[in-house]
Amino acid sequence: MRWNPLPLPSQDARTDFLAGMTTLAGNGSPVAGHGCSAHIYAINHPMENRFFSNADGEMLFVPEKGKIELRTEMGVLVIGPCEIAVIPRGLKFQLNPLEGTARGYVCENYGSPFQLPELGPIGANGLANPRDFSSPHAQFVTGPEADLQHELVHKFQGMFWSAELAHSPMDVVAWHGNYAPYQYDLRRFNTIGTVSFDHPDPSIFTVLTSVSETPGTANVDFVIFPPRWMVAENTFRPPYFHRNFMSEFMGLITGSYDAKEGGFVPGGSSLHNRMSAHGPDAITFEKASAATLSPQKIDHTLAFMFESRFAFETTRESQEPHLLQQDYWKCWQGFKKQFQT
Amino acid sequence: MRWNPLPLPSQDARTDFLAGMTTLAGNGSPVAGHGCSAHIYAINHPMENRFFSNADGEMLFVPEKGKIELRTEMGVLVIGPCEIAVIPRGLKFQLNPLEGTARGYVCENYGSPFQLPELGPIGANGLANPRDFSSPHAQFVTGPEADLQHELVHKFQGMFWSAELAHSPMDVVAWHGNYAPYQYDLRRFNTIGTVSFDHPDPSIFTVLTSVSETPGTANVDFVIFPPRWMVAENTFRPPYFHRNFMSEFMGLITGSYDAKEGGFVPGGSSLHNRMSAHGPDAITFEKASAATLSPQKIDHTLAFMFESRFAFETTRESQEPHLLQQDYWKCWQGFKKQFQT
Amino acid sequence: MRWNPLPLPSQDARTDFLAGMTTLAGNGSPVAGHGCSAHIYAINHPMENRFFSNADGEMLFVPEKGKIELRTEMGVLVIGPCEIAVIPRGLKFQLNPLEGTARGYVCENYGSPFQLPELGPIGANGLANPRDFSSPHAQFVTGPEADLQHELVHKFQGMFWSAELAHSPMDVVAWHGNYAPYQYDLRRFNTIGTVSFDHPDPSIFTVLTSVSETPGTANVDFVIFPPRWMVAENTFRPPYFHRNFMSEFMGLITGSYDAKEGGFVPGGSSLHNRMSAHGPDAITFEKASAATLSPQKIDHTLAFMFESRFAFETTRESQEPHLLQQDYWKCWQGFKKQFQT
Amino acid sequence: MRWNPLPLPSQDARTDFLAGMTTLAGNGSPVAGHGCSAHIYAINHPMENRFFSNADGEMLFVPEKGKIELRTEMGVLVIGPCEIAVIPRGLKFQLNPLEGTARGYVCENYGSPFQLPELGPIGANGLANPRDFSSPHAQFVTGPEADLQHELVHKFQGMFWSAELAHSPMDVVAWHGNYAPYQYDLRRFNTIGTVSFDHPDPSIFTVLTSVSETPGTANVDFVIFPPRWMVAENTFRPPYFHRNFMSEFMGLITGSYDAKEGGFVPGGSSLHNRMSAHGPDAITFEKASAATLSPQKIDHTLAFMFESRFAFETTRESQEPHLLQQDYWKCWQGFKKQFQT
Amino acid sequence: MRWNPLPLPSQDARTDFLAGMTTLAGNGSPVAGHGCSAHIYAINHPMENRFFSNADGEMLFVPEKGKIELRTEMGVLVIGPCEIAVIPRGLKFQLNPLEGTARGYVCENYGSPFQLPELGPIGANGLANPRDFSSPHAQFVTGPEADLQHELVHKFQGMFWSAELAHSPMDVVAWHGNYAPYQYDLRRFNTIGTVSFDHPDPSIFTVLTSVSETPGTANVDFVIFPPRWMVAENTFRPPYFHRNFMSEFMGLITGSYDAKEGGFVPGGSSLHNRMSAHGPDAITFEKASAATLSPQKIDHTLAFMFESRFAFETTRESQEPHLLQQDYWKCWQGFKKQFQT
Amino acid sequence: MRWNPLPLPSQDARTDFLAGMTTLAGNGSPVAGHGCSAHIYAINHPMENRFFSNADGEMLFVPEKGKIELRTEMGVLVIGPCEIAVIPRGLKFQLNPLEGTARGYVCENYGSPFQLPELGPIGANGLANPRDFSSPHAQFVTGPEADLQHELVHKFQGMFWSAELAHSPMDVVAWHGNYAPYQYDLRRFNTIGTVSFDHPDPSIFTVLTSVSETPGTANVDFVIFPPRWMVAENTFRPPYFHRNFMSEFMGLITGSYDAKEGGFVPGGSSLHNRMSAHGPDAITFEKASAATLSPQKIDHTLAFMFESRFAFETTRESQEPHLLQQDYWKCWQGFKKQFQT
Repeated sequence: MRWNPLPLPSQDARTDFLAGMTTLAGNGSPVAGHGCSAHIYAINHPMENRFFSNADGEMLFVPEKGKIELRTEMGVLVIGPCEIAVIPRGLKFQLNPLEGTARGYVCENYGSPFQLPELGPIGANGLANPRDFSSPHAQFVTGPEADLQHELVHKFQGMFWSAELAHSPMDVVAWHGNYAPYQYDLRRFNTIGTVSFDHPDPSIFTVLTSVSETPGTANVDFVIFPPRWMVAENTFRPPYFHRNFMSEFMGLITGSYDAKEGGFVPGGSSLHNRMSAHGPDAITFEKASAATLSPQKIDHTLAFMFESRFAFETTRESQEPHLLQQDYWKCWQGFKKQFQT
Repeated sequence: MRWNPLPLPSQDARTDFLAGMTTLAGNGSPVAGHGCSAHIYAINHPMENRFFSNADGEMLFVPEKGKIELRTEMGVLVIGPCEIAVIPRGLKFQLNPLEGTARGYVCENYGSPFQLPELGPIGANGLANPRDFSSPHAQFVTGPEADLQHELVHKFQGMFWSAELAHSPMDVVAWHGNYAPYQYDLRRFNTIGTVSFDHPDPSIFTVLTSVSETPGTANVDFVIFPPRWMVAENTFRPPYFHRNFMSEFMGLITGSYDAKEGGFVPGGSSLHNRMSAHGPDAITFEKASAATLSPQKIDHTLAFMFESRFAFETTRESQEPHLLQQDYWKCWQGFKKQFQT
Repeated sequence: MRWNPLPLPSQDARTDFLAGMTTLAGNGSPVAGHGCSAHIYAINHPMENRFFSNADGEMLFVPEKGKIELRTEMGVLVIGPCEIAVIPRGLKFQLNPLEGTARGYVCENYGSPFQLPELGPIGANGLANPRDFSSPHAQFVTGPEADLQHELVHKFQGMFWSAELAHSPMDVVAWHGNYAPYQYDLRRFNTIGTVSFDHPDPSIFTVLTSVSETPGTANVDFVIFPPRWMVAENTFRPPYFHRNFMSEFMGLITGSYDAKEGGFVPGGSSLHNRMSAHGPDAITFEKASAATLSPQKIDHTLAFMFESRFAFETTRESQEPHLLQQDYWKCWQGFKKQFQT
Repeated sequence: MRWNPLPLPSQDARTDFLAGMTTLAGNGSPVAGHGCSAHIYAINHPMENRFFSNADGEMLFVPEKGKIELRTEMGVLVIGPCEIAVIPRGLKFQLNPLEGTARGYVCENYGSPFQLPELGPIGANGLANPRDFSSPHAQFVTGPEADLQHELVHKFQGMFWSAELAHSPMDVVAWHGNYAPYQYDLRRFNTIGTVSFDHPDPSIFTVLTSVSETPGTANVDFVIFPPRWMVAENTFRPPYFHRNFMSEFMGLITGSYDAKEGGFVPGGSSLHNRMSAHGPDAITFEKASAATLSPQKIDHTLAFMFESRFAFETTRESQEPHLLQQDYWKCWQGFKKQFQT
Repeated sequence: MRWNPLPLPSQDARTDFLAGMTTLAGNGSPVAGHGCSAHIYAINHPMENRFFSNADGEMLFVPEKGKIELRTEMGVLVIGPCEIAVIPRGLKFQLNPLEGTARGYVCENYGSPFQLPELGPIGANGLANPRDFSSPHAQFVTGPEADLQHELVHKFQGMFWSAELAHSPMDVVAWHGNYAPYQYDLRRFNTIGTVSFDHPDPSIFTVLTSVSETPGTANVDFVIFPPRWMVAENTFRPPYFHRNFMSEFMGLITGSYDAKEGGFVPGGSSLHNRMSAHGPDAITFEKASAATLSPQKIDHTLAFMFESRFAFETTRESQEPHLLQQDYWKCWQGFKKQFQT
Repeated sequence: MRWNPLPLPSQDARTDFLAGMTTLAGNGSPVAGHGCSAHIYAINHPMENRFFSNADGEMLFVPEKGKIELRTEMGVLVIGPCEIAVIPRGLKFQLNPLEGTARGYVCENYGSPFQLPELGPIGANGLANPRDFSSPHAQFVTGPEADLQHELVHKFQGMFWSAELAHSPMDVVAWHGNYAPYQYDLRRFNTIGTVSFDHPDPSIFTVLTSVSETPGTANVDFVIFPPRWMVAENTFRPPYFHRNFMSEFMGLITGSYDAKEGGFVPGGSSLHNRMSAHGPDAITFEKASAATLSPQKIDHTLAFMFESRFAFETTRESQEPHLLQQDYWKCWQGFKKQFQT
């Protein structure tokens, strides 16, 4: 399945984060504590006196358009496209657009918290380096703002609950420990890949992983397809054709993705579920098969994947005609037979 | 420390494998069952009616010059430069030159048997792929050769023992299981490296590892520096300056190594022990610092490393003036200060 | 949420264990094999010719009032308030009051069997010591009682099934192994706590744990708040304010709990689910903030907690007005601001 | 519960694999990725242009009557009674009878793939030996057959989906790796048992295991009761009476099972769920209690068990009167008391 | 290597345990905390006022002739042939003969304490069952005996130290915990073996194991060859020919061992070190190759093995001509060739 | 064994760190990479142009008298009594007294680097909290000092090597990563202990641990006996009498230790090796047995322990009469018998 980007809200409709969120797909269960959901947001208004907290999971934000501010009990994060932020489970926060409108993706993770993957033979450094992550300084409000009436929307066991507060939740004066929101600039990712031949698994592009109890089958991985050099010799260089156990929800932050010539645009999404065969479209296949294999820089592009051990189920909203692309399957028509006895 | 290659034996001196072996360095202990030794051989004669078996460890052969034949109880392996073979502990075998003379390196591994490293985020394929390793078919001798008197040299607890046998040990008619000799062509190594910036740990070049009880500190790793593309941007591309816990015994199979302009030649060896600082020589440093960072293929070269958690101690033989290079340290003279306040 | 104690059954209503049990909350699933339920019982009659067995989980009994007898296939246990007993999954048993009426709590554990926690740096002894647990001697009935008609009520996949038996299930003549019922006196708990400053996690009071596949997030922990010395200096000594991942079902066996002045009485219960902020009430806060921090013995009290990685869902019965305290939330009203810029 | 065999389809009804399959029981969930289902098939027709693939789990085939052919993308397997085959998740295949009619059992495994059990103190060999498993050579169709219209039936998240293909899926020209179908001859099982006294756990007969995250409680084990010597002294030799955590679905491939004199026939099935007591019937008990304990060969029999950590729920189809044996429970009537005080 | 039994001390020589002990072989190191030693004792006198304690390792006693009493701080154990006892590291004790003379074997274990092996697929019971091990009740001396002068011999870092005590060390009034001496009757071993074909690894006879950090390579295993049924079909039934990583020190408690017709007698010992090929002698081979394979009870015999991951080094004492059998190797002469092309 | 403090160097003798160090005891081996050594230093002079680096292990400094400065490649640490610092293996540094003279203890750790212990049931906080550790900012020298001739003393494989450097090693301009020196104030230790009865293991006072491959038997633990409240009821409160597997090297930083009335003074040391019984002296025993058990603050004291899985061997220097206390054993004379039958 493939989806168009969510339209930006019109100027008249004051759409804050909670109003401007659409759920495309999800799996697992916040009650059972595993799986994740893939949401998209398109907003043009701050949350003002409304705060949100989520007992069901932590939230990973992937802006595609427009800077956003994450005002949390523990301080303020500011991120834009090509950056990400993670808000831990249970923390009160606001997401506000800083540049008029904002659009992006959210992974709501019901399982174990995101962490950096073990690097294995990659060694002591590589992929996302710990030193490039940062958490905010404490920050709290005083004066009249602190005593305003606030609304707290709380997500618990898959339901939304609303409560009135007689004060701002931004009243945390100091904090310590490591259960904190954090942000990361995806442009600092140290991309590793083949420098000889073949096309490695996309697991080599893992930024963060929510591990499951079974090594090798993550609850959900956050994987990116960043700018990088392609130098593989004697190799079909685009992502190869495959069907596999893991299910892949993809989004595009900027540029174009190297397995699809068109149709998959910034702000759009695609889903290839467990054991659904997929790969480059026919045009990409023909081009790549004929290409000269000199070093080539894939640049000005950033796609990502929420990859999960559970198949994603799609929502009713995701089936609306202005979102869902009905003819996605046609991109794989027209392949020619390659072998005869 | 750095060593010249072992001179090839003169035609008059009929030198078989046991006669033509020199031990440069070792660590751990065959009695305690950890550590390894680094040997070099230079031979010009087959073992004829002599066989060898080693109760102290398995043996990894790295030919630098000349094809060799490994006749084992379980069949025959033939390898040449850029290939390796491993004979398990306790197996009777002969090493015979097939092209007049032969020279190469041996890692005698007292610890856990070599295995492929866990790939971590590299995923399902990469580095040395299991399908590229092969074991021999059973093969046994009959007729008069089978009944000849043979000598068996057995290494046990660091000592050599000799026994007379009234028949050939090549009398194994069939075998099954996975405790078998095997060979691998290093040119099939799927090299992975940075395709963005920075210079990864050499652990990313691990072919085989003898793990210890402590993850991350191998008993001994067999690591190669194969032909590959260098595309790192904003990066000092040669192996960086470092001192570290692991100790590094290196050899060169062919070509030249990218951290040293000269002195380290095919058949030669070097050793940088635990916490000894090392890195490129001053000439390499100047060149690499000034170079334009376009894609570059490092080609026609193959160096390797026996890297161990234990510091290597060198033998008396290794100190002989025709082997040991007295002025190796001088390659790091002449660096200029880079910072002033 | 907070609940009043279950009223004791009137003398006229002959209420045995199966009739006198009320389920307040539960999580997970007996079908999937994880989670637990929290029940309370208030009874005044023995089970006579009725036996119970539970294929869905083991049962932990926490009497609050009145001695009870647990007649099992493997022998008889007798426990009273401040003692506990555990009946393994699938064992046939009766629970009978020995002193007229009896009241208490039950944790039905669908996950892995309760075990003693690993002690970590606490060392070789501490918390509940293995030597203080005991299992019964075999005991079986003969004569006419053995041949009476009996009813067996069996719980399987969350349902109750009834069968007629032509004989007593108390016909086990001998047994061996470690799959056996056991009892423990909570007064023998070797309580560990701070002897310097700060207020440790309640995990330091764990008596028994049903581990999950994810270390640190137990399926359910049985935790107590026993008599102990408070000596922490420079510290707010009552249980601190927090919201957290684990969900906490509490009960009170005797005395009063140090975070709440009233409302939480022996036989009563409270529930603070995942990421619901809680802590001492406003009165306790004021008192503790002003107190002189000399050594103080918290005595004549015993509260406990069933703490689970899954949020508890409450039953319809638990919402009845004579049980549920509607104004529990008010105990946190009236806190004063502590910081101004 | 116990079931009669599925009747063979009449000659008129052309029944292929998808039409001729009946589900008796299942547990867990293909969505959550654990548990398994037990199916039986009775067929008399090949699948022709129909192919099947299963995204929900791998499939273990246990023929009871008639050879079958498993035509897969990766080549063709042929097995008959006393042999098994496993088709991995997501692979396209056909199951065709080779001898007119065919009947057998299927375990659809939603959890981790079947693997050989760790042998523990059994050592380096025993039970099912790796060398006795085999995978097919690649095989692909060309010519007109390759261009025929085909139907692909795909099982995904517990539902069946059908698609038209313009070509045969048998178009895989070569493959490598270890994600492949395989077969095994159960007559090569190296059966281990007591050679002194007592009756070991049936776990000692494990052929393949789908492990769960909790060691000791498999998602599902495939266990057989093969021909073997009984030599235990001072022992009641038939399977002992027990109730236990694991749930046991059994089938009979040939001969008769040593705990039941009749009623359990080849092609039939039985189910003893979690904590349901079971054991030999009264007749078997009397005979075995009186028998002389000389060495005895149990021969010409092969029963098996799908043993799971989850209780099996039965389907509506399984309750049909021609399948379900209503009086199974009566086989345990008539036991005499053994002890009096 | 093979040894004769130690001669029993003559009546005139009052030989207590410390005087009557001979060390045959050892490996590892008490300083490094791994490995073990194999000792034999032949005694005719109690230790009287002498006590022994061993900081270097625990001691496993295997009597071959005569009951012995182990008087320890924690109570008294009495064992005879076919029984064993283990005294933990650091416990003060006496070993006294109860029937005039006594002879036996001792394994001094420098590594991790002996424990029961994990049973793997053998399941919940089998091999040595926990319920058959017993520890003594506390026992202490009073009166004049308590105040006698005593000698304490203490072994520490491989050396013996002697101290005078003004009182008996048998002054422990009570004890708890599980760091205690224990005994076991080897006749209660539940022997498991093949009931189909092939000859399993001797690991299936493991009574106790001192694990190392590397699973599968025990520091030392205590293995027995107890009475059992041999029923393997199509199999060469005696212990097969092999050379392997583990080193095997054997002793014989009673009867004769099934791989050797003579020479290996009760009280005698043999050693087959790492990668030394061994197996039945030529006579046994011929007989077993010609035998009819009906069920056969191997009875009236009990051999054992201390099997270690380290090769054993032998002592000077072990080389004395009255102990060491010079012609042991000859038992393997005279085998005939079995294969010709 | 017990030692007097090292005398402070006389003013005339300019004693720097390398000159003023005495080794009392050690175990394991820097070559094999396990074990540790216990050193003491007494100095009155800075190292000036001399630097030290240690390839054999990391070094833990425990000052007893006088502030010291640790000038390292990565910046400068300043610590005094009741503080500690750790310099990682291979880092160049100077130790200089800042207040005239300085004295203290050093643990040279050959095994795995010190880390915080897993807290187990102690929970999320407690003992030494991560937030109380700090590492220095980078700092480098320029100008004439940078170009002075320096001596580097390097310890490698247990030997000292000296090299001339033409510049200061303090030339590191920036660094990142976590392989860095750090310091900690022991007064911030969150001491946990019994608040009911009994006397916990000293493991509950672990500040840092160098783990071994065998959980529960650390290579070396750094344990402190800090100020704390004693409130145990019905308990003999001083450290109990014991002999155990671990070996204990102790030192005293300030005050007096609660198991010994005298003899063990600040700057002094004691050693109780594996399985050597020890405990309070007779006077302490009598007093503690008669004491009223009201809450008592143990204050103004700080002892510590290097506790290792290997027995310590003492050096020749440690046996000098002005250091070694010959009559230490006498402190345990005079205990009275407590039990009579």
